[in-house]
Amino acid sequence: MSTTSLDPTVTAVATQFDLATGLTEARPSLQRRLSDMSGMYADTAALSAAVDADDVLTYEFYDFGVPSLETEVAYGTSITYPGKVGDEYFMTKGHFHTRLESAEIYLCLSGQGLMLMESPEGDVQVEEFRPGRSVYVPGRYAHRSINTSPDEPLITFFAFPGDAGHDYGTIETKGFRRIVLERDGAPVLVDNPRWQS
Amino acid sequence: MSTTSLDPTVTAVATQFDLATGLTEARPSLQRRLSDMSGMYADTAALSAAVDADDVLTYEFYDFGVPSLETEVAYGTSITYPGKVGDEYFMTKGHFHTRLESAEIYLCLSGQGLMLMESPEGDVQVEEFRPGRSVYVPGRYAHRSINTSPDEPLITFFAFPGDAGHDYGTIETKGFRRIVLERDGAPVLVDNPRWQS
Ligand SMILES: [Mn+2]
Ligand SMILES: [Mn+2]
Repeated sequence: MSTTSLDPTVTAVATQFDLATGLTEARPSLQRRLSDMSGMYADTAALSAAVDADDVLTYEFYDFGVPSLETEVAYGTSITYPGKVGDEYFMTKGHFHTRLESAEIYLCLSGQGLMLMESPEGDVQVEEFRPGRSVYVPGRYAHRSINTSPDEPLITFFAFPGDAGHDYGTIETKGFRRIVLERDGAPVLVDNPRWQS
Repeated sequence: MSTTSLDPTVTAVATQFDLATGLTEARPSLQRRLSDMSGMYADTAALSAAVDADDVLTYEFYDFGVPSLETEVAYGTSITYPGKVGDEYFMTKGHFHTRLESAEIYLCLSGQGLMLMESPEGDVQVEEFRPGRSVYVPGRYAHRSINTSPDEPLITFFAFPGDAGHDYGTIETKGFRRIVLERDGAPVLVDNPRWQS
């Protein structure tokens, strides 16, 4: 976890990202391997086997430690790698914002995929990521990036209010109501058999 | 001016931008020609002559009418075209945020240039734009994009708090304390002879 400050930013900060990889050398990324995704994929046997065989990096992203103030803007890149666990595409854990009403904007820089969104009341929305496509995630919606490409990383740039915070626990406990699987080579949205009400 | 709502966004919004041009067909851009830049360039005679000769488009950007709430995120692209008025590079008008403390993040998608920033107390900061480089503009700083390339548009993606608002009037009246001119083929920061204290 980054240490969050309540002192406003007073100096401009420039960060060089590589647009081809989404990565920056400005600071270490936060990395999530298959072994960090326990309970997240529907096919638990396939996950266990994949962790044992080769515990690959599934996604990484950055936290620049922007002050936790509503007047600041947290930002960074997120890179979700191609792959599947069983029929389920590699994806981020997904989260609600602690300040639930906080929205977020994503801009897809390369790759293809989906943004899966779900409100506490169970409304589900899905939008496509393609290069140059922005997706505005409304406040109150948990959000998860899913890479549906067979071979390309899904690279996005994101920005959200500095005081939004992250609630990962709700999704870790309950899951999303819907998951995205590959069927006949294409993504389909289906009920999550492991969803906890 | 867009009509701003105080009702939170409840539906995801996807927008396709062309990463090569920065443009989208989702809505009309806001466009600023040389004739919209009266009083902004140091060489007023050169500006008059340029307006009379060919009142070119100098920059354009988007306003998606995001609700004016601190939990929302205003966003869009900004495209500043290459060119000069006398020795001064094409640039945006620049503005403070009405809620002065509001920060903003820019990601340069292509081109090259500078972000010129200035606080009400007169502190001046400058950062370079290059493809993949993000620039975080601290709260309280007016900000102006400047295209220093001889031939390429400067294309950025920006995001700021939904309730930040725009104060263009202060810069229109006083100007920035510093301006950027081309000297021997390179940009230099110099005092603005027309700055009004
Ligand atoms: Mn988020
Ligand atoms: Mn601004």
